[in-house]
Amino acid sequence: MNNWDRDHIEALGRAVSRLIADHWAKLDEMNVFPGVTPQEVERALQAPIPERGSDAHEVLREFQEKILPYCMTIPSPNYYGLLNPTPTLISIFADALASALNQNVGAWGHSPSATTVEKQVVRWLCDVIGYDENALGTFTSGGTMANVTGLKLALHACLPHVAEQGLTSVGRPVTIYVSEEGHFSIDRAADVLGLGRANVRKIPADDRFKIDVRRLVEQIERDQREGRIPCAVIGVAGTTSTGAIDPLNELADIAERFGLWFHVDAAYGGAAVLSESVRPRLVGISRADSITVDPHKWFFVPFAAGLILVKEGKRLRQTFDIHPAYIPQRSSLTGEETLNFFQHGVLGSRRFVGLKLWMSLKHLGTEWYANVIDRQIELCRYLARRVEDHPDFEACAPVELGIFCFRYFPQTLRRQYAEADAARRHQIDQLLNETNLRLQILVEQSGKAWFSTTLLKGVRALRINILSYLTRREHIDRLFALIEEKAPLALSQVER
Amino acid sequence: MNNWDRDHIEALGRAVSRLIADHWAKLDEMNVFPGVTPQEVERALQAPIPERGSDAHEVLREFQEKILPYCMTIPSPNYYGLLNPTPTLISIFADALASALNQNVGAWGHSPSATTVEKQVVRWLCDVIGYDENALGTFTSGGTMANVTGLKLALHACLPHVAEQGLTSVGRPVTIYVSEEGHFSIDRAADVLGLGRANVRKIPADDRFKIDVRRLVEQIERDQREGRIPCAVIGVAGTTSTGAIDPLNELADIAERFGLWFHVDAAYGGAAVLSESVRPRLVGISRADSITVDPHKWFFVPFAAGLILVKEGKRLRQTFDIHPAYIPQRSSLTGEETLNFFQHGVLGSRRFVGLKLWMSLKHLGTEWYANVIDRQIELCRYLARRVEDHPDFEACAPVELGIFCFRYFPQTLRRQYAEADAARRHQIDQLLNETNLRLQILVEQSGKAWFSTTLLKGVRALRINILSYLTRREHIDRLFALIEEKAPLALSQVER
Repeated sequence: MNNWDRDHIEALGRAVSRLIADHWAKLDEMNVFPGVTPQEVERALQAPIPERGSDAHEVLREFQEKILPYCMTIPSPNYYGLLNPTPTLISIFADALASALNQNVGAWGHSPSATTVEKQVVRWLCDVIGYDENALGTFTSGGTMANVTGLKLALHACLPHVAEQGLTSVGRPVTIYVSEEGHFSIDRAADVLGLGRANVRKIPADDRFKIDVRRLVEQIERDQREGRIPCAVIGVAGTTSTGAIDPLNELADIAERFGLWFHVDAAYGGAAVLSESVRPRLVGISRADSITVDPHKWFFVPFAAGLILVKEGKRLRQTFDIHPAYIPQRSSLTGEETLNFFQHGVLGSRRFVGLKLWMSLKHLGTEWYANVIDRQIELCRYLARRVEDHPDFEACAPVELGIFCFRYFPQTLRRQYAEADAARRHQIDQLLNETNLRLQILVEQSGKAWFSTTLLKGVRALRINILSYLTRREHIDRLFALIEEKAPLALSQVER
Repeated sequence: MNNWDRDHIEALGRAVSRLIADHWAKLDEMNVFPGVTPQEVERALQAPIPERGSDAHEVLREFQEKILPYCMTIPSPNYYGLLNPTPTLISIFADALASALNQNVGAWGHSPSATTVEKQVVRWLCDVIGYDENALGTFTSGGTMANVTGLKLALHACLPHVAEQGLTSVGRPVTIYVSEEGHFSIDRAADVLGLGRANVRKIPADDRFKIDVRRLVEQIERDQREGRIPCAVIGVAGTTSTGAIDPLNELADIAERFGLWFHVDAAYGGAAVLSESVRPRLVGISRADSITVDPHKWFFVPFAAGLILVKEGKRLRQTFDIHPAYIPQRSSLTGEETLNFFQHGVLGSRRFVGLKLWMSLKHLGTEWYANVIDRQIELCRYLARRVEDHPDFEACAPVELGIFCFRYFPQTLRRQYAEADAARRHQIDQLLNETNLRLQILVEQSGKAWFSTTLLKGVRALRINILSYLTRREHIDRLFALIEEKAPLALSQVER
């Protein structure tokens, strides 16, 4: 049991590699959603806690029989879902190496090279973003915790005594500002940090789903007048629903004018600074006080890899400093203070998350990333053209990054809509929303592709997000043909 | 580049497996701390962000040359450090599989089998703890976030309107209670949640480093009288410094009497419910409203795997419920609501963390865990006997779990101490603290073993934590011989 014999290790490694190779060879053919009910999966997996063990290869067989068939095929080129990428090959094996070394990246003394690799990768991304040498960052478990960290920095900058005395000592609500298209993790961050969800001011978005800066200024001024404490403005670089990029430069101006922290949630869009074509639309990002970037999105590494980058890096230490007696915090050779990430973020002990990003960047280079990102945006534009050319579909949002939202709106209904009164229009709106929701389910059930829907100012849209580097034009053609085929069926099912 | 050819995948897998096998074959001989300065590691790794990629095997070579040699050898049998285990072999490869599938365990629809596996593992641990069928839990990135989650549940139970209105609406401080031996993540959790670090009431510990329940009751009563809002009592099952287990049953009584949430931080000690010999000392744990357990500690899986278990499982959903438009929350086949972990915890998108614990339990069984845990406690007791039998060393805390704290206190100084006045005693106390601190550094620099020191009521102690299942009696003998050898040198260096 738990045999550390060399032959055993290599045999297990071979079996796992073969399993991965087999799985990936079939990615394009496999159903994206496995078409199972919760009960079926429960039944397959139900078992009491094992008292006695079993052979490692037996466990792999069980994995192959009971887990693998009921997975969502997220790395599939036909997966157009929730900002989850097809991971790079090397990042998968990097995770095995990180686990074998089991470095604790909380402290340099427990991970000399791992801490240094992460510092290096953070430096790379700071350079690419346009931050100077004062910047620093730290890996998190994802975008939610990166946003929590960024907003905690904001709160600490705004009201430093809260760390000791708590928010109950403040007496007035502390408010933060984000577009109504901001990710739900902002609400959750406000809740977790004790600010309260009602103090997240959701600013209306314009018709391109970017924050309305005039309304933002009005809201800040109103809150100030009414005795609240405005604390942070959040810009989104790549909204979850449509990929819209807020006007970051204007937001930076506003934050500056009111003396507020400027946080950019670039969980999805951050990687696009590598693309020449997108970069001009991200101008202003380097004026942010803090930036969320999720390597487990457009940097194509597997979960869980989030990142918070901070313009004045020392603010991390100022906010999270702590000195437990049992953790060495200096080099025993030179006596100097080391970089201990547990003093620069929420987490204590931490996985060597940076290895998979370091290895992916070393293996593929920024050039590969830029090309893939550009290609994915171009594929979205291609789909948008197909939709524009089709009389039964319409775009619901412009293509800004690798997301395109559109909906089925057949000609027949469109003609009726043009001539209808308000009540009938409302009826048709409802019908369209239900039809497009139904259409998503029919595609899911076919197994041939997967995407989600979203609500855009009350309109239910199909949301296509291209985040597999395996997706090519032929996949998009197949996807659109599938949608075309299922759409009338969805309508008839809803009308019935 | 990023070649998904079957031969390439298998070749890369073989190379990585060989690397892991080579590394593990040398674990016992390798230096535990690599003996490098921060500058040396920086120099080895410094490089600009790569524009062009390089062959995957080239990247592995760079890993082998520049990262591997500067790692802390945490899986070594000679590592007696910071609650970081030697991971099980299968859990290392489980992480590669989890990364290859890249399931998003935020939502059932994005991880049917992965969500179900995690639910199953949570069920197993709830059963073992003694929770009934109403319990539920969720994986976190570690103990800090599990404690944040547990205390957020406490706050929500105590003041539900805070979620919307924030703590600024409360007006009186909200207090939580933990022994002075509690982990720093409790302070951090209080800070992150906006409660404020000053509102963590640190209750003195007794001479066995367990919370003084009389003082606890006094503090709660004082806070109530003075208008604060007591919210949660925290019991520690396995303190970080000495492994002490608080009297959980008494704490449960107190929490009940005052109507407070009872949270148990069993990040380290939780796994010991599997041991027949320890279980009686954990009685009362199943009365906790929430429990932190870190599988990446005594369940021997690699970072990052924390877990929060909740007696009334529905409280997770009540606290963290959210309904984004773009994430399906029902089965498209049956229409019923699915278990979506993003609605039951802080995180949104989440890694398939449970796989490595599921595989380890399947492979090794609870029997293996119980045996290893018992053996590690027995090894600590063995070391304690060696220390007791030695005239120049003394125990600083009793052995409760797999941690033993002691110090060098040579006979010569002991005789002086017996006859000394207060001023001279103070001098000797200082000398001993510095000597034991120095002793730790000398052992670290030898490379032959690693442990940390800690402060126990002002006394600097060597802290030996056995968390490698590879550690045997011969390692303990070698460790103690090494400490014996270095101790006089440490004293002479400090005296100089």
